[in-house]
Amino acid sequence: MNAIITLTTDFGLADAYVAAMKGVILSINPEAKLVDICHNIQPQNIPQAAFVLSTAYHFFPQRTIHLVVVDPGVGTRRRAIILRTPQFVFVAPDNGVLSYVIEPFLDKPLRLKQKRVTLPNELEAVSITNPEFWRSPVSATFHGRDIFAPVAARLSLGYAPKEFGEVLTSVATLPRLRPYKEAADTLVGHIMHIDNFGNLITNIKGEDIPGKSFTIEVSDNFISGLSRTYEEGEGLIALIGSSGYLEIAMKKGSASSFLGAGIGQEVKIKLDKC
Amino acid sequence: MNAIITLTTDFGLADAYVAAMKGVILSINPEAKLVDICHNIQPQNIPQAAFVLSTAYHFFPQRTIHLVVVDPGVGTRRRAIILRTPQFVFVAPDNGVLSYVIEPFLDKPLRLKQKRVTLPNELEAVSITNPEFWRSPVSATFHGRDIFAPVAARLSLGYAPKEFGEVLTSVATLPRLRPYKEAADTLVGHIMHIDNFGNLITNIKGEDIPGKSFTIEVSDNFISGLSRTYEEGEGLIALIGSSGYLEIAMKKGSASSFLGAGIGQEVKIKLDKC
Amino acid sequence: MNAIITLTTDFGLADAYVAAMKGVILSINPEAKLVDICHNIQPQNIPQAAFVLSTAYHFFPQRTIHLVVVDPGVGTRRRAIILRTPQFVFVAPDNGVLSYVIEPFLDKPLRLKQKRVTLPNELEAVSITNPEFWRSPVSATFHGRDIFAPVAARLSLGYAPKEFGEVLTSVATLPRLRPYKEAADTLVGHIMHIDNFGNLITNIKGEDIPGKSFTIEVSDNFISGLSRTYEEGEGLIALIGSSGYLEIAMKKGSASSFLGAGIGQEVKIKLDKC
Repeated sequence: MNAIITLTTDFGLADAYVAAMKGVILSINPEAKLVDICHNIQPQNIPQAAFVLSTAYHFFPQRTIHLVVVDPGVGTRRRAIILRTPQFVFVAPDNGVLSYVIEPFLDKPLRLKQKRVTLPNELEAVSITNPEFWRSPVSATFHGRDIFAPVAARLSLGYAPKEFGEVLTSVATLPRLRPYKEAADTLVGHIMHIDNFGNLITNIKGEDIPGKSFTIEVSDNFISGLSRTYEEGEGLIALIGSSGYLEIAMKKGSASSFLGAGIGQEVKIKLDKC
Repeated sequence: MNAIITLTTDFGLADAYVAAMKGVILSINPEAKLVDICHNIQPQNIPQAAFVLSTAYHFFPQRTIHLVVVDPGVGTRRRAIILRTPQFVFVAPDNGVLSYVIEPFLDKPLRLKQKRVTLPNELEAVSITNPEFWRSPVSATFHGRDIFAPVAARLSLGYAPKEFGEVLTSVATLPRLRPYKEAADTLVGHIMHIDNFGNLITNIKGEDIPGKSFTIEVSDNFISGLSRTYEEGEGLIALIGSSGYLEIAMKKGSASSFLGAGIGQEVKIKLDKC
Repeated sequence: MNAIITLTTDFGLADAYVAAMKGVILSINPEAKLVDICHNIQPQNIPQAAFVLSTAYHFFPQRTIHLVVVDPGVGTRRRAIILRTPQFVFVAPDNGVLSYVIEPFLDKPLRLKQKRVTLPNELEAVSITNPEFWRSPVSATFHGRDIFAPVAARLSLGYAPKEFGEVLTSVATLPRLRPYKEAADTLVGHIMHIDNFGNLITNIKGEDIPGKSFTIEVSDNFISGLSRTYEEGEGLIALIGSSGYLEIAMKKGSASSFLGAGIGQEVKIKLDKC
C-alpha cells in the first residue's frame, strides 16, 4: 500500500527534528511516501500553520494522511487528535490548527470568539490516548516524534482511528478565522501569511467582498480595486491569489518589505460610495 | 513505472506552493518519484534558474522529467512548453530558462543578443495549449499547479508531448549566456550564482580561458591564476568548480561577503603579458 | 530492495549540489528511497554535523545507509570511509563526523584530546580507495557527488563494504565530544547546536549532571535547576531535551537571540552547596 503522509511543522530545516519523525514513520511503514508541505511555519504560530495547510492539503490524493505538528502546548494537557474527513485523515494537536479543514463541513461559519465546535456527521475525531502505539518513553518536548509520527505511520498501514483512543464530539477551533463586518460598508480581515515573494495573503475570500467598487486599506496605504495578475497595474496591487484569498502584492517588488507589514495585521475593504 | 519528476522553482520553502504542485502530481500519478532540485532561486531570476538547473539535471536517470517554474510572466501571453532532448523531458515556461539545456545541441554558440533559437533535429518542443489536461479553473497566478504539474504528471504516465499542443520550431533563449571577448586579451563573464559557501560561480568554463597565465578581476580585486581545491592558496582564490565553471572563493570564508558581490556582476580575465 | 539512504550536508538548499548527489544515486539505484536529515549544517562545522546526525540516525530502519558530506578537506589527503555498525551503514569523510555513532560502542569514553580511536569488534570500517565505483573524472571539489554518492548507491544495491577498499582498524574522532569536570563540583560542556526555536543544545546528557541541586551558567546568566517542558518556568529555563541533552530555552522566545550565544560556547553546571 503506497500510503502518502504529508508533514507540516514549525521545526525549520536547520535541525534533524523532521528527519527523526520520518525515521520513526519509515521504521513502522517502510513503504510510506513522505511529502513535506512546509516546515517554516513561524515558531508556534497556529493560525499561520492552519492557513498554510489549507492551501495545500486538498490537492493530495484521497486517503492521504496529513501530519501537522505546530504544538506550543507539547507536554501540557492539550489533547492530540486524529480527524477523519471523507477524503483525508489528519493527525495533529487539538489546538485549532485544523480549523480550515473543518470549516467547509459546518452549516454556519465559526463565530468570532468561538473556541470549540461540535463535529458534523461527515467528520470523525478521536483523542489519541492509547499509549500502546507510542514510542516509549515519551519525551515531554517532542510528541511529534514519539506520538504523532508512530500514530500516522500505523494509520498508513490501515489501522482504524478508533484503535488510538476514544471518539470526540467536539474539537478546538481558532477565533477570527474569517473576516467580519465592522460596518455595513466595511469588511475587516487579517494577514494570515507572507509568501516567498513578499505577497501578503489575507483571510478574505474573493466572494467575501460585498461589492464591485471598493478600496483596500493596509498599513495606511490604499489600493483601488483588483488586478488579475502580478504583472497588471503599478506599485502596490491587490488580487485574488491562487488559493482564492485576497493578496496584497507589489509589482516587481515585495509588498511585505515596502509596507513593513506582518502576520496578524488588519486589512480593511471599504465599499466606494456610489 | 517508477518515473522521476524533479522540481526547480523560485517558490522558497516558507509556503505550500511546492507541496500543492506535488499533491497535484501524485493525484495523477501516485507512483511518481519527486525530487527537489532547488526552490530558492531568487524570485523571478530566470538566468540563475537556468544556471542552477544546468548543474544538476544531467545527473538524473534517462527519461527523468524536469519541471521548472520560474515564471514572472504567469497569466500573461508567455508560452508554456515541453522540450524533449534525447535523454530528458522538460516542462517550463518559454522564457529562456532552458537555454543551458539547449546550448550543447547547437552548431554555433548563442549570439550575445539572440532571443530565440531554431531547434536542431535532436530536440522536440511543444507549446502547451490543450486545456484538456489542465486543472480547471486555471488560476491566473499559479500555472505551476494548474498547468505545469498536471502536464508533467501525465508525461510521467507515458503520454507523448504532442498530446499537449502543437509542435514548435523555435524557443526562447537568454542573452549573455556565455562570456564574450572585450579585447584580444580580455574575456568578460558574469556571476551566475552564489552558493551556500559564498562562492561566486561564473558562466566562464575552464576551456573558455584563452591562455595559461592570467589575472582575474572581480569587484576591484585581482586574483592570479587558479587553485585546485578550496584549501589551496590564501585569501581570495579562483578555481574551476565541480560543474566546470570558474568560481571565486575565499579560503575559510565567504567570497560573497568579502567582496559584496552579487549575481549579474562582471568578472574579467586578462591574459598576462609575456 | 527498498533501500533508504539519508543525506546530511552543509550544502544548504540554495544550490543544486544535493540534487546532483540524488541524481547520481538514482541513476545507479532508481529504487533508493532518499531522506534528507539536514543540509543546513554551518559550512564546514564538523562537530555540529556530528551532533545533528546523532539526534536522528538511530530512528531509521535497520540497514539504512547514512551519507554524510561535511567535508572541509575535500580534494586533500583526508580519507573517505564506510563505517558499518550492527544496525546501519555510514559513508562519510574520515574527519570525526561519525564520533557520536562510534562512542556508544566504546568501553571507555573518548579522552579530551584524543584524535583517533581503535575500532571495537562490532564496528567495521573500510577506506574508500577503489576508483572502480567512482564517477570519472572526480572533481577536486565535490567528492559528495563523485565518490560518496555512487558508493552509497552501490551499498544500497547490496555491495559489501570491502569491495570499496581496504579494512581500517582506527578512524578519526572529535576532541571535546563530551563535557569534562573542571572541579569536583563543576562540569563544563559546550553548545553543540542551536535549533529553529533558538534553543541552545549542549553536549551535556541528563545523566552527566552530578547532583540534584545545581545552577547552570551560560553567557553570564544563571539558571537554577530544570524545567520539564518549554511551558514550565519563566524567562530563561533549562531542560533535558528530546535527544537527552541539556538545553537552554527561553519561554515564548529565543534563548539564542536573548543571550547572543553561539555554537562552541561554554555552559557550566555548578553543584549548589548544601
